Amino acid sequence: MFKAVIGAEKLKEAIESVSTLVEEAKLKLSPEGFSVRAVDPANVAMVSLDLARDAFDSFEATDGELGIDLTKLNGIMEMADKGDGIELDLDETAHKLILRMRGLSYTMSLLDPSSIRKEPKVPSLDLPAHIVIRGEDLKRAVKAAEKVSDYMSIGVRGEVFFMEAEGDTDNVQLEMTKDQLVELKPGEAKSLFSLDYLTDISRIAGKTPEVSIDVGRDYPLKIRFKIADGHGDVSYMLAPRVESE
Amino acid sequence: MFKAVIGAEKLKEAIESVSTLVEEAKLKLSPEGFSVRAVDPANVAMVSLDLARDAFDSFEATDGELGIDLTKLNGIMEMADKGDGIELDLDETAHKLILRMRGLSYTMSLLDPSSIRKEPKVPSLDLPAHIVIRGEDLKRAVKAAEKVSDYMSIGVRGEVFFMEAEGDTDNVQLEMTKDQLVELKPGEAKSLFSLDYLTDISRIAGKTPEVSIDVGRDYPLKIRFKIADGHGDVSYMLAPRVESE
Amino acid sequence: MFKAVIGAEKLKEAIESVSTLVEEAKLKLSPEGFSVRAVDPANVAMVSLDLARDAFDSFEATDGELGIDLTKLNGIMEMADKGDGIELDLDETAHKLILRMRGLSYTMSLLDPSSIRKEPKVPSLDLPAHIVIRGEDLKRAVKAAEKVSDYMSIGVRGEVFFMEAEGDTDNVQLEMTKDQLVELKPGEAKSLFSLDYLTDISRIAGKTPEVSIDVGRDYPLKIRFKIADGHGDVSYMLAPRVESE
Repeated sequence: MFKAVIGAEKLKEAIESVSTLVEEAKLKLSPEGFSVRAVDPANVAMVSLDLARDAFDSFEATDGELGIDLTKLNGIMEMADKGDGIELDLDETAHKLILRMRGLSYTMSLLDPSSIRKEPKVPSLDLPAHIVIRGEDLKRAVKAAEKVSDYMSIGVRGEVFFMEAEGDTDNVQLEMTKDQLVELKPGEAKSLFSLDYLTDISRIAGKTPEVSIDVGRDYPLKIRFKIADGHGDVSYMLAPRVESE
Repeated sequence: MFKAVIGAEKLKEAIESVSTLVEEAKLKLSPEGFSVRAVDPANVAMVSLDLARDAFDSFEATDGELGIDLTKLNGIMEMADKGDGIELDLDETAHKLILRMRGLSYTMSLLDPSSIRKEPKVPSLDLPAHIVIRGEDLKRAVKAAEKVSDYMSIGVRGEVFFMEAEGDTDNVQLEMTKDQLVELKPGEAKSLFSLDYLTDISRIAGKTPEVSIDVGRDYPLKIRFKIADGHGDVSYMLAPRVESE
Repeated sequence: MFKAVIGAEKLKEAIESVSTLVEEAKLKLSPEGFSVRAVDPANVAMVSLDLARDAFDSFEATDGELGIDLTKLNGIMEMADKGDGIELDLDETAHKLILRMRGLSYTMSLLDPSSIRKEPKVPSLDLPAHIVIRGEDLKRAVKAAEKVSDYMSIGVRGEVFFMEAEGDTDNVQLEMTKDQLVELKPGEAKSLFSLDYLTDISRIAGKTPEVSIDVGRDYPLKIRFKIADGHGDVSYMLAPRVESE
């Protein structure tokens, strides 16, 4: 059983945070809200989304699992205006999710959850350095790095957070000291990441005021931020690329 | 003889309402204004445009007929700004129409009217149901229907106007009661139409506040609205698609 | 030695005025500012840019020459916001130019100046007619001419400045009298120019309030305007196309 109403903007944010990595996902329902865990097909990045019932105008759900075509759901969301409320209604017998917005109703077939890639186990990592950066600064550095390379180093040197990309002839560097960041917990850290993934993630993260980054030495990166007025948590884990070539 | 001045925005609206269906058309001139009747190449949709002399800042014309390349005329209109007045001047001996806007003059060759597809006879239909809907609601329903199908049903059920599209797995439905519409005259009606045409028509109609729709049971649809501050009438007739497959 | 700070917008204007014709250029440095002279690969158009030290927030340079990849420099400029200041810093030993903007630094390899096409000699021409036109009027006429032809005549007839393009069936004409122009010095003049070049040039010139044009009879055209709040001069010379075919 699932019946809820939510602002279009909040649902959009939530869906996009996952659809940037995968096209289909299992949405886990509980009386407390919903959550999604997914890995991208190449097993490089993992996303974890939790949307609490407080993000909704109204929310009623029993434990369950819905197989969702995220690409399609994004398309449906385009029909809603920013201020619209979206009503979600599960038709369990027909295996359909009905979305209603200002008189319009869209009946979407659900996917068989067992046909969707299994959810990953989220590893618990103890990463030495912790940074909180403004979303737009992250996005800007990633965009700049794309000009010269397909990879980007992220790390902390002394009291300075850095993001660097080296091309064949040119290179790009962003250095931020504690006072230019929201927060900095120093620690030895430098890892190399694929810009393909960082671009997708920073497009989503770039819209939020504060993005938390945990990074280590040749270790996965953790990027976390809030959505839906603080009632949603999005977190990505991104595998490093070993530099030795 | 034809010599007139009109606001760029009004002429643009008028030309686009016809060019959405055909690339060339015969423009019928009379001392009272001009009119165009045209059918699309597939004989599915028909447009009828009447622009009264009151839509013009000045207007002088004798009875006549001009063969117009609408695609080209649209291109010329792009050179005008919203507030510009367009001066139209017919050079009968050279078979050219001169368009002037802020110092710039464009001399456009006319087409031989006899080379253009004959104008259709507009059939008079007695359609049982009549609806007046806001243009943007029509456009929204058409856009939503495109997500799932190439066809859309339009009709009235009891006191409810509906537009519906059914896809292989998903479907879309808009239902509007009398109080959500500008006007509703109930009557048994449901016909299926090609979204190719409805998309083009609703892109034009979607800009006007009120669109009048007449619909019957497996009968052509009539869509009408005003342009040019009420001095122009545009009406489309769209053939239904028989549902039995 | 070269070390300077300049508003992003001013540097962008300056670079684009040259990159519209060539992809690489030699930037001549002196204590008074910098300058660029370049001809396009087809030898049809020539650009001459002078940016005075007053255009900069701070400027220090000794005489020198930098080989610049303008396409790349344009890409770097995209990372700056309108209000940003750009810091330019030459690393002479490494042959690199470092660009800094809001914490981000981009290290760009310089090209070997000797690998870049030689600078042209700017011929001194005595052109009979002189016009000062608003940038947007020039741009508008060029855009209109593109609708009908690949070439455009520019000239003066009596006290009227004209730009004309003739197509197979249609033609476009802009005529401006002294009072519609900023300035007009009459003189017998009419030359034909390629719209390929005029389009590129007028896209840049169209943003400035006043553009000065010197034109003769089957002679090159001179187009000049100010950039960077009057501290920069851009001038183009465009070869005519002989009409007799």
